[in-house]
Amino acid sequence: MKNVITGDLEFFKGIGQIQFEGPESDNPLAFRWYNAAQMVGGKTMEAHFRFACAYWHSFNGNGSDPFGSATHLFPWDEKSDPIARAKDKMDAAFEFMSKMQLPFYCFHDVDLVDYTDVISENEKRLETLVAYAREKQSASGIRLLWGTANLFSHRRYMNGAATNPDFQVLAHAGAQVKAAIDATIALGGENYVFWGGREGYMSLLNTNMKREQEHLARFLHLAKDYARKQGFTGTFFIEPKPCEPTKHQYDYDAATVIAFLQQYGLTTDFKLNLEVNHATLAGHTFQHELQVAADHGLLGSIDANRGDAQNGWDTDQFPNNLNELVETMLVILEAGGLGSGGVNFDAKIRRNSTDPADLFYAHIGSMDLFARALLAAHRILETSEFQKIRAARYASFDAGEGAAFEAGKLNLEDLRNYAVRMGEPETRSGRQEFLENLVNRYL
Amino acid sequence: MKNVITGDLEFFKGIGQIQFEGPESDNPLAFRWYNAAQMVGGKTMEAHFRFACAYWHSFNGNGSDPFGSATHLFPWDEKSDPIARAKDKMDAAFEFMSKMQLPFYCFHDVDLVDYTDVISENEKRLETLVAYAREKQSASGIRLLWGTANLFSHRRYMNGAATNPDFQVLAHAGAQVKAAIDATIALGGENYVFWGGREGYMSLLNTNMKREQEHLARFLHLAKDYARKQGFTGTFFIEPKPCEPTKHQYDYDAATVIAFLQQYGLTTDFKLNLEVNHATLAGHTFQHELQVAADHGLLGSIDANRGDAQNGWDTDQFPNNLNELVETMLVILEAGGLGSGGVNFDAKIRRNSTDPADLFYAHIGSMDLFARALLAAHRILETSEFQKIRAARYASFDAGEGAAFEAGKLNLEDLRNYAVRMGEPETRSGRQEFLENLVNRYL
Amino acid sequence: MKNVITGDLEFFKGIGQIQFEGPESDNPLAFRWYNAAQMVGGKTMEAHFRFACAYWHSFNGNGSDPFGSATHLFPWDEKSDPIARAKDKMDAAFEFMSKMQLPFYCFHDVDLVDYTDVISENEKRLETLVAYAREKQSASGIRLLWGTANLFSHRRYMNGAATNPDFQVLAHAGAQVKAAIDATIALGGENYVFWGGREGYMSLLNTNMKREQEHLARFLHLAKDYARKQGFTGTFFIEPKPCEPTKHQYDYDAATVIAFLQQYGLTTDFKLNLEVNHATLAGHTFQHELQVAADHGLLGSIDANRGDAQNGWDTDQFPNNLNELVETMLVILEAGGLGSGGVNFDAKIRRNSTDPADLFYAHIGSMDLFARALLAAHRILETSEFQKIRAARYASFDAGEGAAFEAGKLNLEDLRNYAVRMGEPETRSGRQEFLENLVNRYL
Amino acid sequence: MKNVITGDLEFFKGIGQIQFEGPESDNPLAFRWYNAAQMVGGKTMEAHFRFACAYWHSFNGNGSDPFGSATHLFPWDEKSDPIARAKDKMDAAFEFMSKMQLPFYCFHDVDLVDYTDVISENEKRLETLVAYAREKQSASGIRLLWGTANLFSHRRYMNGAATNPDFQVLAHAGAQVKAAIDATIALGGENYVFWGGREGYMSLLNTNMKREQEHLARFLHLAKDYARKQGFTGTFFIEPKPCEPTKHQYDYDAATVIAFLQQYGLTTDFKLNLEVNHATLAGHTFQHELQVAADHGLLGSIDANRGDAQNGWDTDQFPNNLNELVETMLVILEAGGLGSGGVNFDAKIRRNSTDPADLFYAHIGSMDLFARALLAAHRILETSEFQKIRAARYASFDAGEGAAFEAGKLNLEDLRNYAVRMGEPETRSGRQEFLENLVNRYL
Repeated sequence: MKNVITGDLEFFKGIGQIQFEGPESDNPLAFRWYNAAQMVGGKTMEAHFRFACAYWHSFNGNGSDPFGSATHLFPWDEKSDPIARAKDKMDAAFEFMSKMQLPFYCFHDVDLVDYTDVISENEKRLETLVAYAREKQSASGIRLLWGTANLFSHRRYMNGAATNPDFQVLAHAGAQVKAAIDATIALGGENYVFWGGREGYMSLLNTNMKREQEHLARFLHLAKDYARKQGFTGTFFIEPKPCEPTKHQYDYDAATVIAFLQQYGLTTDFKLNLEVNHATLAGHTFQHELQVAADHGLLGSIDANRGDAQNGWDTDQFPNNLNELVETMLVILEAGGLGSGGVNFDAKIRRNSTDPADLFYAHIGSMDLFARALLAAHRILETSEFQKIRAARYASFDAGEGAAFEAGKLNLEDLRNYAVRMGEPETRSGRQEFLENLVNRYL
Repeated sequence: MKNVITGDLEFFKGIGQIQFEGPESDNPLAFRWYNAAQMVGGKTMEAHFRFACAYWHSFNGNGSDPFGSATHLFPWDEKSDPIARAKDKMDAAFEFMSKMQLPFYCFHDVDLVDYTDVISENEKRLETLVAYAREKQSASGIRLLWGTANLFSHRRYMNGAATNPDFQVLAHAGAQVKAAIDATIALGGENYVFWGGREGYMSLLNTNMKREQEHLARFLHLAKDYARKQGFTGTFFIEPKPCEPTKHQYDYDAATVIAFLQQYGLTTDFKLNLEVNHATLAGHTFQHELQVAADHGLLGSIDANRGDAQNGWDTDQFPNNLNELVETMLVILEAGGLGSGGVNFDAKIRRNSTDPADLFYAHIGSMDLFARALLAAHRILETSEFQKIRAARYASFDAGEGAAFEAGKLNLEDLRNYAVRMGEPETRSGRQEFLENLVNRYL
Repeated sequence: MKNVITGDLEFFKGIGQIQFEGPESDNPLAFRWYNAAQMVGGKTMEAHFRFACAYWHSFNGNGSDPFGSATHLFPWDEKSDPIARAKDKMDAAFEFMSKMQLPFYCFHDVDLVDYTDVISENEKRLETLVAYAREKQSASGIRLLWGTANLFSHRRYMNGAATNPDFQVLAHAGAQVKAAIDATIALGGENYVFWGGREGYMSLLNTNMKREQEHLARFLHLAKDYARKQGFTGTFFIEPKPCEPTKHQYDYDAATVIAFLQQYGLTTDFKLNLEVNHATLAGHTFQHELQVAADHGLLGSIDANRGDAQNGWDTDQFPNNLNELVETMLVILEAGGLGSGGVNFDAKIRRNSTDPADLFYAHIGSMDLFARALLAAHRILETSEFQKIRAARYASFDAGEGAAFEAGKLNLEDLRNYAVRMGEPETRSGRQEFLENLVNRYL
Repeated sequence: MKNVITGDLEFFKGIGQIQFEGPESDNPLAFRWYNAAQMVGGKTMEAHFRFACAYWHSFNGNGSDPFGSATHLFPWDEKSDPIARAKDKMDAAFEFMSKMQLPFYCFHDVDLVDYTDVISENEKRLETLVAYAREKQSASGIRLLWGTANLFSHRRYMNGAATNPDFQVLAHAGAQVKAAIDATIALGGENYVFWGGREGYMSLLNTNMKREQEHLARFLHLAKDYARKQGFTGTFFIEPKPCEPTKHQYDYDAATVIAFLQQYGLTTDFKLNLEVNHATLAGHTFQHELQVAADHGLLGSIDANRGDAQNGWDTDQFPNNLNELVETMLVILEAGGLGSGGVNFDAKIRRNSTDPADLFYAHIGSMDLFARALLAAHRILETSEFQKIRAARYASFDAGEGAAFEAGKLNLEDLRNYAVRMGEPETRSGRQEFLENLVNRYL
């Protein structure tokens, strides 16, 4: 157990005094399983997760929803000057991340500072904050996991950004991406993300889907070419989501995005940034989406959160389901980890979680559960029969006729003749309940 | 840890030899947390759960689904004579339940023995099997949690049973229910259940919903009156489900059923039998449905299983989600337990779980997880601040003006004047993440 | 065909000039089927529908969504003085409603004028606008279908209003409802509505559901008692919705609300205001919800819109599905119409529908489709076998043993003996496809 | 209007006598809009649709569902000899199709005749029925739209067919496909379909997804190579479905299947067979799936039916929503039609539609509605501004800088500089309500 909140606080005063009676009377502002330095399978926990704070939810989010105005009134959001207010927000963010031992953060351009309708003014503002962030990063050791541009909130993007029917809007998106890439490079960002919140349609009746998708592909190429020219060596991520805010978003799910990347020659530079709640909205488990990406060598990074199976929109709750996280960590460990990606808490405290401490509780609970899931998944892979049982199911393809089939040496008539020769196959249980129990025994 | 499989087996030969490498090399055919005799909060685990085997899934189910024929070919299902086959099935069931330490079972009439189209022949068959079951119960100590009549599988019920537009069909349902009640009484059944699988509609265009629901209410009264006349003192349960097989089932969810019971004067004799997967199909968490029933004093029994949030039908999988079960046990413990009800495993092993051992794994894993969840929930209630935190949120109603409001002493103008006097209320966090973490710390 | 846009416009300048090439080259700013004065089954179309404009969507809505800021920038929303701005908005609303021949409107208190945190100031503002509205109503003949109070947008209601754990918040809600009732009475409002957007929970873990629901019941009684004391003779409506913004809303669906009204003795004064998209979010067809309400004599009014079966949130689109509307009108006509209720367009033009004309198109298209659906449903009821076919299915209950059953003269044994006597019932088709075709032939 | 039922009937006796009082007292066993020979846009209606009867639903389906046994007891299903019974069924099918003017049919191997566990016996049986079918085709002029093999119903396929972990099962699938291809060729089938009902997984825990998908790709190549060697020149179709019976099916939706076809070099020979209810289960509108396929030049054929937005499984109801069908026909007409594909009624009459006439009503209603939708869609494209309005939205890409962007002549900095030069773009409405109204005016 390790206390996370020590020392003085400026924007989160009073957090350290909160008391909590839990198992072993431990402090809720403490980790029970997460220990950044602890080695698990040859890597520290910190290296496994590369946890990142999502600037937008934790420092721009204000608890508003479609039916109500802001409930989170933050001390860092009070000044009237946009630059001063942006610096306060950044101070608060770095204070929070430092106390929480979050080694990374992620942002959209407009998270750092309010944008106007004038491109050159926005560029200037962003540069100011980037300079400020460099100092903060340097002082704290906290790094930028990825940057991105918000191409969905402004009115001009209501019909899409790179897929907007109006070329002027697309050009504006280009300007914004250019500046965001410049900022990401300047801050040593390891990756750059595209989430196409409005890249889709509200109605097929007014949409030329094919033309819009071709524009999107070209746009991504331009962005990638520019970044490479500027010396960016990191990875680009596409973040799939099936819908919301659009009726249909082009980056529907992992399989759809992979198809798009393959079709337009983007798989060398792009990987996937997968989000739990986006997976479930698309009708998939998160594990499924991870496995699809891993199978194509395109697993990049994850946005950690959870949805609500009863609420059909992106609830972006903090992860808290142990079973789900263990299965998540199984896929990630088997895929060899997240590489240059990490675990970004793209989650928001509830509208009615208005205590300054709630943001800490949310992150601590989730980080701790990830750590617990890692330990369980690691033990399953190291000590159980899990992988052996799964592999054994495919043994008939490892030798003989099955291997010949895999090697491309059989034709359809060979299959038929082999089947006739062998007669009705034996029935083999899939042993699903056994494997589910096996996993549960390690929780 | 306690081995469950000892001694000889007739219908499940070879189960005991299966090996398993798990944590602490324990045997998967063993319980880790479940111990029938262990006291938790003044009751044995057995008394907390009153686990029951669902005859239909475990001994009539054959792995078929809408797209495929049977995959589970059981040794007890081989004889051609219906009575002999039914007795083999019962032998297998009691062998299984004995080995598994399941203290209860539940059945539909047609689970025990195949029915024909002739009522008197069905009555005779059922009586034969009831006599046989009495012997098995007596020899094993296993008891009947509840009986019921299957009023949905036969062709005649395609338009409903008690809600069928044809009175002849309703009468036929009456005959079946009468015999099933007789059987339940003869076997000392503690409860009698109604699940109205076809009591609903496929199309509103051909349906007089009001008239059908009035028929249903009358039918339930007749069944209850008959049972009481025969000396039955147990509880009747209605089991809600929103749809499937019907497009809309009248017993949609807990709230709908409670409304129906209240409207037709049935709350004295009837309670709810709640099923996890039926809750989730209706857009509720299982905990919600339990709480609704408990709040009305109508929590009767539960059908334990789980759905698949990505598959929109009743998957009836064995329970395996620890978080969900802990929250389930919290509600049940706070409600004072299940009374004459119990935990019936209304769950089926997967179509491709075809090993004789799979049925054991499924039950062991679920019973064990229930035990683990009970221990966690009990500790949360005994040692944590959970209840205190929740109660404190409502403190303003425990005294002063709030208490006066609850006591009916204020009118709308009083509220207005009080609000004016007090000014804008203070903001109080709902502390959701804190409480979710609290629960997780006890898993 | 009847032009709807004639004469000068102040806030919607230029609408009349838009051209459209449609079938028979008709103007899209014209009705094809809707004719307010046309008699259908003894009532004018206007009397059948009592169409109402929803102030909030059409005049406060600005196209923002959870992922983006306002896109609809209205000329009536420009002045800085709240009263002057509110009057401009009302001028625009009455201009729109007059041109559209909408005979009614509906509002929340905060739709009419911005509220502050000071109750007495809010009351004063509302009175000012109410006085202004009286003049507008008088000049235009447009009436108030219903008023309501917005108890969900303000931060103080984040944990509920009448179900808030804090009595001070409940009292504040009381103050707001009192003023809204006063306003409704002052404007001759025919009904008063409660939509409990935050009356529910975000997490069961911090919720005493029973106590909250008892508070809600008492609150409704206080509001009703106050209104009656002030001479209000109209109907109160509860508007069900399953969730959003809450995780679970207490007024889940028609059946749940009816149960609540029955349990707490509110059925004399309250009926239901049913919304299409709320029905579909709850897993029901709209027709189902209407029928449930009608069967209990509690069908009050409807909020006309539609959801998107692929998007799991309240999309509030304008109604445009002919099949759905015909089935809607069938239920309403058979129930004897909407009484003091009406058809309120609780629908919003899409975020990217930014032309001043889009609001007109949306209302014209929907009103016209309603008219077309009314004509079709009326013809189905007048000239087809629809009702006869449905009634014939239940003929066995109209006489003989079936009638005896309905009359309570049979017991369970009688049913059994009748079934034995009659033997296996004949199979009778539900004729669903036939009836669906029948309806389609009248579209 | 054209009567469809004339002359004598053998298996559907008595259909012609049914009376119906509809609009204009027309006979429900008659078409109102469908007229095979009528020219629409240069093609007959028959050529537009190429309607096909789905053998499985209409002649093997018996009304059973997961909760109940057969309700449709057919005169053609009575003989005990499998060949004699199969011929009766075929006689009934051709009688039905002839009376209905259905120019095509589709089948699985096991639809034509019952299969055993012995491959050579199955091949013999299939050949017998193929010979019989050739005679029936020749006599009636009815043709085979496509054949397929049922690789999901038999117990051996419980873990998949081409993706089964056991090579023996895969080989068995090969034998079955070979025979089905032979049958398709012998009957002049124009296409061959793969629906991978079990090609997916029940649990990721026991699944090597990558290896399974590689097996599937190889299997499809072998099947295609064999068919080409036998002289088959038709198209292969993959039919996407997201789940059911599996938890996850690999052929999830159009985008996923297209990605698979591209990745494994199968786009030359394969196209998509899209089903309405499969689209909606995957979270898409049917129009979306059609457009995705059309955009890739891979629109092959459609399985016409509809789902139920409130029931989360494949309900396979007969199509009856006019709005949906008009939008369907818009996409198909703009894509240039279905080529060698057609409109296959992969729909089943309801479990309780047990009259011999119900099968006729279902097909007549759907064919007629398709005809009506074709006429409306054709008029929209011919006479309305629909296409012009849509195209105009993209005008900025037809010339100038937008065209330069499409031509690959701009880089990211060019976009930025253009955006700076142009300033904030004008806001342009998407006009969704206008376009929805436009479509509705043509219904």
